[in-house]
Amino acid sequence: MDLLDPEEFRRQGHLVIDFIADYYNSIEKYPVLSQVEPGYLPKILPQSAPYTPEPIETILQDVQKHILPGITHWQSPNYFAYFPSSGSTAGFLGEVLSAGFNVVGFNWMSSPAATELESIVMDWLGQMLNLPKSFLFSGTGGGVLQGTTCEAILCTLVAARDQMLHQTGRQNVNQLVVYASDQTHSALQKAAKIAGILPQNIRVIKTTKATSFALSPDSLRMAICSDVKSGLVPLFLCATVGTTSTTAVDPLKELCNVAAEYGIWVHVDAAYAGSSCICPEFRHFIDGVEGANSFSFNAHKWFFTTLDCCCLWVKDPRALTKSLGTHPEFLRNKTTGSKEVVDYKDWQIALSRRFRSLKLWLVIRSYGVNNLRIFLRNHVEMAKIFEELVASDHRFEVVVPRNFAMVCFRALALPKVEMVYRNGFNITEMISADDKRRNELNRELLERINKSGNLYMTHAVVGGIYMLRFAVGASLTEDRHVFLAWKVVQEHLDAILEDMGFNG
Amino acid sequence: MDLLDPEEFRRQGHLVIDFIADYYNSIEKYPVLSQVEPGYLPKILPQSAPYTPEPIETILQDVQKHILPGITHWQSPNYFAYFPSSGSTAGFLGEVLSAGFNVVGFNWMSSPAATELESIVMDWLGQMLNLPKSFLFSGTGGGVLQGTTCEAILCTLVAARDQMLHQTGRQNVNQLVVYASDQTHSALQKAAKIAGILPQNIRVIKTTKATSFALSPDSLRMAICSDVKSGLVPLFLCATVGTTSTTAVDPLKELCNVAAEYGIWVHVDAAYAGSSCICPEFRHFIDGVEGANSFSFNAHKWFFTTLDCCCLWVKDPRALTKSLGTHPEFLRNKTTGSKEVVDYKDWQIALSRRFRSLKLWLVIRSYGVNNLRIFLRNHVEMAKIFEELVASDHRFEVVVPRNFAMVCFRALALPKVEMVYRNGFNITEMISADDKRRNELNRELLERINKSGNLYMTHAVVGGIYMLRFAVGASLTEDRHVFLAWKVVQEHLDAILEDMGFNG
Repeated sequence: MDLLDPEEFRRQGHLVIDFIADYYNSIEKYPVLSQVEPGYLPKILPQSAPYTPEPIETILQDVQKHILPGITHWQSPNYFAYFPSSGSTAGFLGEVLSAGFNVVGFNWMSSPAATELESIVMDWLGQMLNLPKSFLFSGTGGGVLQGTTCEAILCTLVAARDQMLHQTGRQNVNQLVVYASDQTHSALQKAAKIAGILPQNIRVIKTTKATSFALSPDSLRMAICSDVKSGLVPLFLCATVGTTSTTAVDPLKELCNVAAEYGIWVHVDAAYAGSSCICPEFRHFIDGVEGANSFSFNAHKWFFTTLDCCCLWVKDPRALTKSLGTHPEFLRNKTTGSKEVVDYKDWQIALSRRFRSLKLWLVIRSYGVNNLRIFLRNHVEMAKIFEELVASDHRFEVVVPRNFAMVCFRALALPKVEMVYRNGFNITEMISADDKRRNELNRELLERINKSGNLYMTHAVVGGIYMLRFAVGASLTEDRHVFLAWKVVQEHLDAILEDMGFNG
Repeated sequence: MDLLDPEEFRRQGHLVIDFIADYYNSIEKYPVLSQVEPGYLPKILPQSAPYTPEPIETILQDVQKHILPGITHWQSPNYFAYFPSSGSTAGFLGEVLSAGFNVVGFNWMSSPAATELESIVMDWLGQMLNLPKSFLFSGTGGGVLQGTTCEAILCTLVAARDQMLHQTGRQNVNQLVVYASDQTHSALQKAAKIAGILPQNIRVIKTTKATSFALSPDSLRMAICSDVKSGLVPLFLCATVGTTSTTAVDPLKELCNVAAEYGIWVHVDAAYAGSSCICPEFRHFIDGVEGANSFSFNAHKWFFTTLDCCCLWVKDPRALTKSLGTHPEFLRNKTTGSKEVVDYKDWQIALSRRFRSLKLWLVIRSYGVNNLRIFLRNHVEMAKIFEELVASDHRFEVVVPRNFAMVCFRALALPKVEMVYRNGFNITEMISADDKRRNELNRELLERINKSGNLYMTHAVVGGIYMLRFAVGASLTEDRHVFLAWKVVQEHLDAILEDMGFNG
């Protein structure tokens, strides 16, 4: 039995490619959200590893029979939950090539192509986003592929921390303060905890509906001033372009101006929305990025690149490498010594790293900038369709303005107007009825929709309002899926209202 | 143009599988260590992204022409550098399936199969390693797949740190001390820096040739006592089974006993050598692991699983989840609330995670425990062959005892005995000639060998001795490659001696 016999590899590889192609062909027949109960798999699989080999055909049968029912189908065209993990043939094939070569590109020498292609592709992408030269290798900065935004934030935060402590002394770590809004991703909290920032020094600044839940520069300034007065040291701001709950956009320019006065490192987390900024009409969302220290977005979210692939650019790579660099003897080599090359191990948490740039390279080349823009615009257009459908039904409302391809909406629980009157309610009163009951209604609505298996959405609670998030971005989604989704939403509201006694 | 058309996916998928199979078929024709110069790729590729799409056939031609020359061929049978990244058809196919489904398994609900299969496979593997029940889900602990050992160490260190600071107060972070030997992987230093441990509180305890560069429990105790006297707080010990430089094995039992007296968290880093412990005859190397708090090994090193896949077990998962848990509203769901399920996002740095357990599952099922042991034993046997070849040539020596499938050796620079006399040297003097000159010789020897492209080895410097590391573990390596490698080593020494004037 051979581990890597080329002909057996070829035979089994073709089987698995066909298995996945067949899966995509039939993906709509599965409930989008897995319907299994906790503990379903241990009941099926053996309790210990097999002693003797099993053929790939048997294993694939088991994947079909036992694994697929336990999968939530992120690639389904009816997947509208969280943010998309938009796959593509090119992104997939890049991952496959990378797995086939299976090189460990920790430094330049361990596989020069892995390093150089990454630098090239990060410059390509940076140009596509119209990032200032100060973030590009062709300028004075540079880009690196991380696994996730969590890692990107942790790396930049540690760089900022060490830069500051180098000036003020290590013993002052407990004075450092990190700033975010109440809409910032939990990744920031986690990164700050890992980096040893005191929990009470993580400022979570309140946002309001008045600013569409964007962080207000005035609120930031007030928080900073108060900390400075208390003898604390402002360190790091995580600004967001496209927040997780509602795709809110923090005003980068104004925030960076405030931060600059206090020498704060600004990281811009555009995990979801960053990719859309390759379209000229959306580029304004990152206006002001030139004032930030670092910028990241997830190509594995809405850029057709298989998980995981977070693109991070920094203005000052040396800040990263000073904090994260290691120089063990067993990795010494002439090119590293010459300082002519990038050793990406010093730009990230881990030593080992996969050849991730291959998948980005394949995505960009296989589709070209023009098609990539078209794909993104199509998703935004589909979200607009959904938004209009919501607006056309007076029983629903769009809760916050739509910025990208995600619509935040909720049922207002209005039965038909006639019924409201018949039941002695005033419509206006009903609309302003307490949000608690509305929240319960929408929770119930979402649960029924997801249980149906017809589509999958998730929720957010912002400003006390429970809302449904309809995030377009799965690569197989077409207009018809959006119309169908809306029909499902309406039908489930009908059913709930009927159950509540508003059955006409 | 479609992003994910199933039939186009199928067509292109088959092309790429054939491309990789052909690559494996012809892998021996490439120089193992890439011979390109820094900056080779920017000279070839365009400076900006293409506006229009390019066919996969063109891209694959470019991979062949431009990427392959820049790859160091980790899958080559003549690859003996660092530690192996031993690929396999099964490990590759698991990665491919995972990329095909492209689910984001941060919590149970986002894809129950991803979570449950991971827990099952980690218990399988734990049993294969004969880990105590206290590390398994079927006992009182649990296992999780991390990307790399660096992440595993950082996560456990942060858990240990927070547990300690919870007792002593957050302000005491600057008192915490982390222990390692001078052979411990640089991952520990990096993790400690990221976690905010003061650089001067990272104890790097010296090892010596007398203990084959294993950490001495007495030295550990002395270091701890000295710190305690200074009012510092001992926190964390990273013990290693199979160090990077020489595969030294720290005595776990004794070290854990010392650590237990002081309430120190012990992490066992068996990144490279852990997998071999599924063979009963090697299991003794991790005897004493029952006294540790956590244990990890890299399935992507020597367990035939595509990069990245680090297996981490902890006795107290709650210590991890207390430090790394986040509970944002947008991820709330019934199963998480019920606490019946594992949400692996709280066991790691990142939120997002790939379906990594698929590849481990495929490796274990496709080969079975019996074959996996045979593969590992074969590699050890091949290392033994090489060790004997080295020992049979009096111009070389094996520098430290071989534990696993890696041989540390060096040239002693002895020309033929007759020549020594002719040149007026005494053999004994020559053998004890100063190591500096020997080190230079071996550096030169390694550089010439790697430049030949016939094989690739790397070096280590331990106890002042520069040595060549011959690490067997590439999945395509057979006995003949080992014999050939030895021939290449001998020939290059011959050539050097000739250049030095010892040309008989």
